[in-house]
Amino acid sequence: MDIAILIYDGFTALDAVGPYEVLSCLPKAKVHFVAKEAGLKRTHTKALSLSADYKLADLPNPDIVVIPGGTKGTMVATKDETILDWIKKAHMSSKWTTSVCTGSLILGATGILQGLKATTHWYAKDYLSQFGAEYTNDRVVQQGKIITAAGVSAGIDMALYLAGEIAGKEMAQVIQLLIEYDPTPPFDSGSLVKADKSIIELAQDAAKSEFE
Amino acid sequence: MDIAILIYDGFTALDAVGPYEVLSCLPKAKVHFVAKEAGLKRTHTKALSLSADYKLADLPNPDIVVIPGGTKGTMVATKDETILDWIKKAHMSSKWTTSVCTGSLILGATGILQGLKATTHWYAKDYLSQFGAEYTNDRVVQQGKIITAAGVSAGIDMALYLAGEIAGKEMAQVIQLLIEYDPTPPFDSGSLVKADKSIIELAQDAAKSEFE
Repeated sequence: MDIAILIYDGFTALDAVGPYEVLSCLPKAKVHFVAKEAGLKRTHTKALSLSADYKLADLPNPDIVVIPGGTKGTMVATKDETILDWIKKAHMSSKWTTSVCTGSLILGATGILQGLKATTHWYAKDYLSQFGAEYTNDRVVQQGKIITAAGVSAGIDMALYLAGEIAGKEMAQVIQLLIEYDPTPPFDSGSLVKADKSIIELAQDAAKSEFE
Repeated sequence: MDIAILIYDGFTALDAVGPYEVLSCLPKAKVHFVAKEAGLKRTHTKALSLSADYKLADLPNPDIVVIPGGTKGTMVATKDETILDWIKKAHMSSKWTTSVCTGSLILGATGILQGLKATTHWYAKDYLSQFGAEYTNDRVVQQGKIITAAGVSAGIDMALYLAGEIAGKEMAQVIQLLIEYDPTPPFDSGSLVKADKSIIELAQDAAKSEFE
């Protein structure tokens, strides 16, 4: 089972590494980090690089496609024809096509979210409609074989759900225990619904400075 | 504020990337991925490499030390005198010294957990006592300026707690919203207390094959 995780300069590391950590535990999983050109890709913070061991052309027919988001670099990727063509073709034969965070904007730019419900990082929700998708305020949104996840950390929940669909709930629970995913956040401000207004305003300012 | 995240061949990516994603949002944070020698370090799955931009000697006095865990490579690191010496010296002047998952075994090997409570990945809990530490079944365990976190994903919770200690609860909540950390796992088997016996047995077998 070939899993292709797309990376590019400006992606957010946890968007990619959350699903990677879960999906790499699946039986027969072969995880490949792919990019337009193989080599190091810098994350949006610029403090970290991950290696794409493969170029897109090396993995034309992955079983699972994972598109992480990011900030400015993601917007660049939404206009990169090489990336968009690869996603469009990979999606034709994939079993699952997925995104995390603003990765759904890249998916959207290929046209495959047209008329579908989808999610993204809360800050970017208004961007989805320009790709014909309907923003849905769920953490994980499935439309057939397409699954989009909300911001950054939501990729872990998405991947566990996907693991259950692929290998059964027992295996997904084994993976959850292996990564000791018993989340106990010390605060309860992880969504627009739960955070205080003052927190939302500060987060919006911070996101805007990263994103625009 | 210099944050040093140690990586080494065989580390687990999410152990490092969870805290990185949180701590890099802190005001004035300068996150550095460090290793014995700078360059690419392969994760325990062998499917991914992260780049250590700095060698240990470049960051002798970080404000925050983060030690991620892993599987076999972690046990190798517990015997690497260069790594242990760096941690011991960094700990003398650090504001916070932290570990995620089996990273606490590396901390333990330096002697600094002697007589303290600590946590680690559930599979490795019996290893802690050989370093004079007392395993504690909490997700995040603080002893003065030392904080240890449970397996893999627990580093996110640990880092949010730490963010609150460093920059205040408001900032920690802003970061939680920025990474949309409103965890909604589709199953509830993320700890030994919550998982079914059959799931625990399967996970133990899988962990054993990775770890030994």
